[in-house]
Amino acid sequence: MLNFEYLLPTRVIFGKGTHLDVGNIARRSGASRILFHYGGGSIRRNGVYDAVTDSMQRAGVSYIELGGVRPNPRLSLVYEGIRLCRQERIDFILAVGGGSVIDSAKAIGMGAAHTERDVWDFYSGAAPERTLPVGVVLTIPAAGSETSMSSVISREEDHLKRSCNDETIRPVFAIMNPELTYTLPAYQTACGAVDIMAHVMERYFTTTDHVETTDRLSEAVLLSMIANVPRALRQPDDYHSRAEIMWCGSLAHSNFLGVGRVQDWATHQMEHEISALYDIAHGAGLAILFPAWMRHVYRADVDRFAQFAARVWDVPESDDRETMAREGIDRLESFFSSIGMPTRLSHAGIDASRIDEMARNTFCNNGDRTGTFVPLTLEDKLAIFRAAV
Amino acid sequence: MLNFEYLLPTRVIFGKGTHLDVGNIARRSGASRILFHYGGGSIRRNGVYDAVTDSMQRAGVSYIELGGVRPNPRLSLVYEGIRLCRQERIDFILAVGGGSVIDSAKAIGMGAAHTERDVWDFYSGAAPERTLPVGVVLTIPAAGSETSMSSVISREEDHLKRSCNDETIRPVFAIMNPELTYTLPAYQTACGAVDIMAHVMERYFTTTDHVETTDRLSEAVLLSMIANVPRALRQPDDYHSRAEIMWCGSLAHSNFLGVGRVQDWATHQMEHEISALYDIAHGAGLAILFPAWMRHVYRADVDRFAQFAARVWDVPESDDRETMAREGIDRLESFFSSIGMPTRLSHAGIDASRIDEMARNTFCNNGDRTGTFVPLTLEDKLAIFRAAV
Repeated sequence: MLNFEYLLPTRVIFGKGTHLDVGNIARRSGASRILFHYGGGSIRRNGVYDAVTDSMQRAGVSYIELGGVRPNPRLSLVYEGIRLCRQERIDFILAVGGGSVIDSAKAIGMGAAHTERDVWDFYSGAAPERTLPVGVVLTIPAAGSETSMSSVISREEDHLKRSCNDETIRPVFAIMNPELTYTLPAYQTACGAVDIMAHVMERYFTTTDHVETTDRLSEAVLLSMIANVPRALRQPDDYHSRAEIMWCGSLAHSNFLGVGRVQDWATHQMEHEISALYDIAHGAGLAILFPAWMRHVYRADVDRFAQFAARVWDVPESDDRETMAREGIDRLESFFSSIGMPTRLSHAGIDASRIDEMARNTFCNNGDRTGTFVPLTLEDKLAIFRAAV
Repeated sequence: MLNFEYLLPTRVIFGKGTHLDVGNIARRSGASRILFHYGGGSIRRNGVYDAVTDSMQRAGVSYIELGGVRPNPRLSLVYEGIRLCRQERIDFILAVGGGSVIDSAKAIGMGAAHTERDVWDFYSGAAPERTLPVGVVLTIPAAGSETSMSSVISREEDHLKRSCNDETIRPVFAIMNPELTYTLPAYQTACGAVDIMAHVMERYFTTTDHVETTDRLSEAVLLSMIANVPRALRQPDDYHSRAEIMWCGSLAHSNFLGVGRVQDWATHQMEHEISALYDIAHGAGLAILFPAWMRHVYRADVDRFAQFAARVWDVPESDDRETMAREGIDRLESFFSSIGMPTRLSHAGIDASRIDEMARNTFCNNGDRTGTFVPLTLEDKLAIFRAAV
């Protein structure tokens, strides 16, 4: 285990009906002039928009609206939000939505709090010093942004998709009502599930030895997801499975599964290139890339992949660790297929024509390589993209 | 899953050498005049006392010492600490030790911050409104007090041992260096391990349905403990197992395993009566009582005990759930024996003479009953104590 620091200052308010009190919760968090940030029309259709605005009015906080966040949230809307915050003297940002809305809110919060800096700097390696406080009403369990220190933003003009990771930007509260996810379409539910599982696996496949506790905790979250996602797909208004998935989404990316270990993140970096070019859902891209990445790298630590196979996928223990490892990867891929996810680029209508561009553009988060479990060269990335066609 | 709120504002600083920077960490947490609170001579013998005082001097914070905390920390020393805080205008309490020292520090912090209240009120049901900030250098993984909202104090004159549980009293930071636990004697290591496992099990045995994720996470911590405690006993300076145990201790009692579920706590309440009368180590008392409690209550939910047996103790799945359940309890008891713990009162030199007194004194944390998995009557408690003789 490596030395680590860990702090999770986000107040989680979890359960039925919890979003109805968002106005008071925001007021107690110091909000008086709120930027109410959201996405498309789904929160208007399912009553969340009305519930949130009613709650803010009853609590006596004022708000300005900024809707229109789209998947793979864009820098241009972030700039608009920053202008609005300054013009309206906003002191709090309320993000109502999924990871895209929350990531956009985090970007606006940083940008508005730094008058002397371009917010894109914080997605290019600079560390933010402060932010406007961000509160969340979560409607899509997936990105884990409600308790994470991450935000991912896309810059339209050059198709760059980059992340900022800093303790400063964890939300001050996260209201999670699993009932709000009953209306999520099956495809979006499954995409979210893949993202959640990917957040666990990016941490699980590590070069750090002696990480027994976090290994076991990671396997626990994966086992719960494997049990609960098919239930939620069969019965979209099953509170229990929706609740387990929503809580797993926060656990998966709040980094308590990642403490004390080197993390990988190659698959996320490579997926960003797919969704930057093709605007495919992030979870679908991950379902395509993760098995391909695993088959490319598992020989670097066959025992870890065999452990994953045995504990998570119930592959029988055997002396043939390599066969165990491959069987675990096959079962992961089958699971993704079983919940309706593509597992090849071609399933998503993407051909090999821009693989070279995607491999070359993939962010190198480890010197001139991508990832740490196996630090990927350009050749490695090309091979993984090709295997995923 | 029940609705819940969760907030863990303690900054964890984990790993080798971390305690050497405690002075700066305390200063950055706002400390200028520190009450340095500790127990007996062990921190003087193992160099921690010198390291901590050097660090405070280098950081330019002043401190007053109050040592002498004993296991089952006493109210009289808490009062002395409160007097000292007022007299010396202390603004921060640094607890260096295990659960007893931290619990005593929490009590002093509450008492010093409430001039109009007797601190014992907060151990008799009143909620504290504030506290002096408490920081921790942990030397014994066991009570989990370094990140918990709990403190347990004993009042000497009437042998009352009572707890305070409030969000207000979580420490502001917890420095955890597993190296500091190399010198823990085997018996104390094992007592700590039982306490950690008990904190998981008090939450695991619940009447709440559909708690898959927290079940799995709880099993993960227990599995890690079962693997690592024997290693630490065989090789006391094995960093890896010491680190896993130390991190499990915080996970077990920070309540992230307990969210969304009814918790039991009968065994802890009953154990408090043993250690109040006999001054036996808390972990040893728990090793005696837990199997006896389990055998008394398991028929209330045989499936939950069978799940515990299968997932934690590798008991083969079978249609005979009752035999599985009993086998799991037997294996827990055997594990406690294997790490040198007593599993009967007689093993600790305690006879049946005061069972009636202990059963009658046991705090009823559920109306006129103790516990929730099976709300225990006086007769139940007598039966459990008798079975543990």
